[in-house]
Amino acid sequence: MEIPSSNLQEIECEINREYSVQCRKDNNEVYLPFSFIQKYFEVYGEFENIEGYEKFEFSHSYSEVHHPPDVIRPDGAFMSFEHYNVEIRKRVKCITAVEGVPISTQWEPAGHYYPIQIAQFALSHYSKYLKEGEPDQIPLLNSERDVGMWLKGGNVNIKSVWSKTRRSQVVEFQSSDSLSNAGFYTMMKETSNFAVTFDFKIVSNGSISLTLKNDAVTFHLHYVFSDTLITCDGKNIYYGLGENRRGDWIHFARDADMDLLKGLSLKCSKYRKLGRLTLLGITIRGHGWLDNVTVSSAAHMDHFFNAANWFVTHQDSRGGWPIMVTRKLISGVMELQPGWYSAMAQGHGISTLVRAYLKSKNTVYLRTAINALKIFEISSAQGGVKARFANSYNWYEEYPTTPSSFVLNGFIFSLFGLYDLKEIATGEPLEKVTQLYEEGIKSLKAMLLMYDSGFGTFYDLRHVSAGLAPNRARWDYHTVHISQLLQLSKMEDEPLFTRTVKRWQDYMKGVRSPHN
Amino acid sequence: MEIPSSNLQEIECEINREYSVQCRKDNNEVYLPFSFIQKYFEVYGEFENIEGYEKFEFSHSYSEVHHPPDVIRPDGAFMSFEHYNVEIRKRVKCITAVEGVPISTQWEPAGHYYPIQIAQFALSHYSKYLKEGEPDQIPLLNSERDVGMWLKGGNVNIKSVWSKTRRSQVVEFQSSDSLSNAGFYTMMKETSNFAVTFDFKIVSNGSISLTLKNDAVTFHLHYVFSDTLITCDGKNIYYGLGENRRGDWIHFARDADMDLLKGLSLKCSKYRKLGRLTLLGITIRGHGWLDNVTVSSAAHMDHFFNAANWFVTHQDSRGGWPIMVTRKLISGVMELQPGWYSAMAQGHGISTLVRAYLKSKNTVYLRTAINALKIFEISSAQGGVKARFANSYNWYEEYPTTPSSFVLNGFIFSLFGLYDLKEIATGEPLEKVTQLYEEGIKSLKAMLLMYDSGFGTFYDLRHVSAGLAPNRARWDYHTVHISQLLQLSKMEDEPLFTRTVKRWQDYMKGVRSPHN
Repeated sequence: MEIPSSNLQEIECEINREYSVQCRKDNNEVYLPFSFIQKYFEVYGEFENIEGYEKFEFSHSYSEVHHPPDVIRPDGAFMSFEHYNVEIRKRVKCITAVEGVPISTQWEPAGHYYPIQIAQFALSHYSKYLKEGEPDQIPLLNSERDVGMWLKGGNVNIKSVWSKTRRSQVVEFQSSDSLSNAGFYTMMKETSNFAVTFDFKIVSNGSISLTLKNDAVTFHLHYVFSDTLITCDGKNIYYGLGENRRGDWIHFARDADMDLLKGLSLKCSKYRKLGRLTLLGITIRGHGWLDNVTVSSAAHMDHFFNAANWFVTHQDSRGGWPIMVTRKLISGVMELQPGWYSAMAQGHGISTLVRAYLKSKNTVYLRTAINALKIFEISSAQGGVKARFANSYNWYEEYPTTPSSFVLNGFIFSLFGLYDLKEIATGEPLEKVTQLYEEGIKSLKAMLLMYDSGFGTFYDLRHVSAGLAPNRARWDYHTVHISQLLQLSKMEDEPLFTRTVKRWQDYMKGVRSPHN
Repeated sequence: MEIPSSNLQEIECEINREYSVQCRKDNNEVYLPFSFIQKYFEVYGEFENIEGYEKFEFSHSYSEVHHPPDVIRPDGAFMSFEHYNVEIRKRVKCITAVEGVPISTQWEPAGHYYPIQIAQFALSHYSKYLKEGEPDQIPLLNSERDVGMWLKGGNVNIKSVWSKTRRSQVVEFQSSDSLSNAGFYTMMKETSNFAVTFDFKIVSNGSISLTLKNDAVTFHLHYVFSDTLITCDGKNIYYGLGENRRGDWIHFARDADMDLLKGLSLKCSKYRKLGRLTLLGITIRGHGWLDNVTVSSAAHMDHFFNAANWFVTHQDSRGGWPIMVTRKLISGVMELQPGWYSAMAQGHGISTLVRAYLKSKNTVYLRTAINALKIFEISSAQGGVKARFANSYNWYEEYPTTPSSFVLNGFIFSLFGLYDLKEIATGEPLEKVTQLYEEGIKSLKAMLLMYDSGFGTFYDLRHVSAGLAPNRARWDYHTVHISQLLQLSKMEDEPLFTRTVKRWQDYMKGVRSPHN
C-alpha cells in the first residue's frame, strides 16, 4: 500500500544530544530507521517473503533454547547435546587416529587435548545414539564368504585364520607396504554412510586408505603408523595411527567425511570445498589381520568409548585432567598457566565415565569417575578448582583464576557431573559426591541471581571479583543458562529455579525485570 | 522535505513472532514507529521546534546528574541538595508550626515524622543558604520607632518594654483574642519576600495571621494555639502552634507561600490554585510580646535549626529516631513494623547535627550525633540497622528488613553521615565512627558492582537475598547512585569508584557493558 506523500516527511532525530539519524515523520508518529535501532539496542531483524507477502521479522535475541530430557538419568541423554556437533567446529583440528578424540586449537594453534571438548564430543555422540538408535550398518567383511567380494592388487595373499586373541575367524592379508600398492580393497558408492569401522592388526609398515570423491576431485585418506596427527599432500590426507601401535589390535572407527573435512581445512591443502561426497573404497596394505569391516550411518558409540577411554588413560595422580595451554580469561588480570584443571572438565569427564560404566559395566570407568572428585576439594590457590565467594560459598571453577571468575555455566556443568555420579555411587564415594553436590547447590541457590542482569544474564562475576565492567552473556550463553536451569528444575524441587528460568526466557523477548 | 511516495510503503513488522506493528519501508530501510520503540525499550522522545526547524529529540534517560561540591567538608553543602525542595513535594503534608519540620504522608496518609525527610529538609535549606548567602531582609518591627508604622484595630494597646529573658526592648501588645478582631497589624505588598520571621510570646488565646492574595482570592493563614497541625475553612487556613506553648517565647519562621500551598492541598479547601501571590499583611492578636519582625527572601537557617533541634528532641534512648509507620518494601516478604530505625535516617541525622554543631558551636548537636552511632551496631534482627551480606560484609540498612534488602543509596547516605562525624569527632567517638565508616567502605568496595546491571543499576539486592526479580533503579535513582559515586571518589582514593562512575554515566546514553 502506498502512502500519500503529503503526510510523510524527513525529520532529524537527535540521539542523546550527541549525533543525529534521519527519521521519517507521519503526522505525529516518528519512524526510526532499523539500521540505527539494530546497532543501538543490539537487536535483530530481517525481511521475510512468504508467497509474495513481505514482512519484517524483528527479533530480540538470536539463539534458541534446547530443552533437556524429561527425566534426568545418569544413563540418559546429556542435556540436549544431541543437537551438538563438536567435531565440525573450526577449533577442532581433527579427530586423532591414535585415540579417536578431538584435538583443539582453541587458545593454542598447535593443538592440545581439551578435556571439555573431548567430553562434549563423547556426550554428544552418546546423546545422538540414544536419539537415533542403532545406526544402519552395511557389513563388508564379516566372514570368509565376504572375502570374495573384495579385490586384490598385485602380490596380495588372503586367508581366513583363527585368532586366539579375538576368539574368532579373521582375515589375514599380506601385500606390499607401499602406498602406491593397490593392496586388498573393496569398492562401493556410498553417499550416506561414511562411518567406517573394523578391527585390525598390522605387523608391517602397512596402512589403511579411504577413497572419497566429490563432483570434481578424488581424495585419499591414509591412516599410517606415524606420530604426526594429520598432514596433507595434494589430494592425499594422512592421519597418524601412532608409531608404536604396530602389532596391536586396533579398533578403527572413522567418519570419513569428517576426516576429509578436517584435512581440507589444513593449510597444506589446496582444496577447500567438501561438496557432495561419495565413499568409493577401503584399501588395506601390509601384513596383518582384519575383522568386522562395516560402513554405517554413524559410529556414535565408538566415538563415545574412545573419549571415555581417553579419560581413563589420561587421568593424573591428582584425579584431574590437566589442561596444557595458557588461558587468559582477562589478559594480565585473570590468567591460567598450562597444567590447570577445570571443574567443568572434571564434571563433564564424570558424566562421560558414568555413562561408559553404565553401558559397559566396566568398573574402571566408575573408579576413574570417583577419582575425579579429588580436584573438587583443592582450592584454586593450590592448583585445584574450588573457589570461595565472600568466604561463604564454595564454587567449582571452570577457570580457577585468582581472583576468581565464577563462570556460571561451567559451574552448573560440574554439578551435573556430580549429580550423575551421586545417582550411582555407593559407600564412601557416595557420601563424598553428595556432600560436594549439595554444597554446590547451596552456593548456586545463594548466588544464582547475581547473574541476573534484569534483561539478560552475566557470564561470570568478574565485575564483582575484579571490579571490572560486567561481562554480559551473549544470547547463546544465555540460552545455555536457561537450558541448565530447566534441567536443574527437574533435578531439584526448588521454586527459585523454576521462577528464574521463566524470567530468563522472557528476557529473550525483550521483557525486563521491573524497576522501582 | 517531502519524499517521493513511490519509495515509501507500509510494511508489517512482526515482533518476536508475537505481535505486529505497522512500519514504513523505504528501499531496504525499515522504519519503526517511535510509539513502539518508546514502550519496548523504555526510552524517551519529544519534538523540539527551534525557530521553525522541527527535530525529534531521542533520549535514553530522563534524569540529570547533579554534581557534589568540589571539596567534601562536614560544614559544606550536602551533596547537591541545594537543588532539592523537600517541602514542595506532595508527600509533605505541611511544615508544622509546632516544631517547624515537615510531616510526611508517605506510607501513612494520617502523617508521621519521617527523619529522612526532616534531615533532607534541613540539609537542602543548609545547602541553599551556602549557595545563596544571607537573604534579603526587610525589618518591619525592630525598635520602638517602627511601632508607628503598624496599625491598630479597636481596643489595642501597644508599648515598648524591657524583656529580661531576651535582654532587649520588645513590643508589648494587648487586644481581643478574637480572630475577627483587626488586632495589631502591618500592611505591605510583598511579591518576592514570603519568609516571615519574628519572636513572640502570647499569654492569652491570641493568634498570628498572614494575609496573602492572588489575582482572584484573598487568603488568611492563622497560627493558633492548637494541637491540630493544619486545617482549613473557606479562605482561612489554620496552623496549630501547640496548645501548651502559650506563654513561651517562640521563634516564628514561616514561608507564607509554602504554608498557603499546603493549605490549598487539603481536602477541606475549595481553592487549588496558588497563582501569583502578594503578601498583604501580618496581624497579631491577644496579649503578648513581639520582637524582630522581618520579611525576607528565605529563612533557610531557621528551617535548618528547627530540623536539627527536632533530631535533638526526638532521639530515643537507643540513639535512634524510630519511624512510626509500617513499611512494606515487598508486601509479605520484606516488611517493617512501626518503630523501625533506618541507617539512612541515622546518617542524615548525623550530617544535619554535625553542621548544626559547626555552625552554632552548641555541643548538644555533637553529643546527639555521637549518640546516633549506637544503632549502627545493632543488627536488623535485634531492631537495629546492621545487616550482613554472605556472613562477610556489614551493611547499614535503609530498610532493615529480614531478609535484608541492601538498598544502595541509603547505605551510601549513611556512610556520608559517618564521614561527616569522623571529620570532627575526637577520642573514643572518633575511633568508633572511623571503624563503622571503614567497615562500610570495605563492604561497599566488595559489593558495589553487584548493583551494576551492565546497562544501569539495581536499587537493592532483593533478587539475591529473596530470590525475586531484580529491582532495577529507575533513572532518577541511577543518577543518585552516580552523584554518590562522584562524591565517594572525592572522599576515597579508590579507582573502583572513578572507573565505575564513568561507566554508570555512559549507561545513561545507552552504552552497555561488553558481552562475551
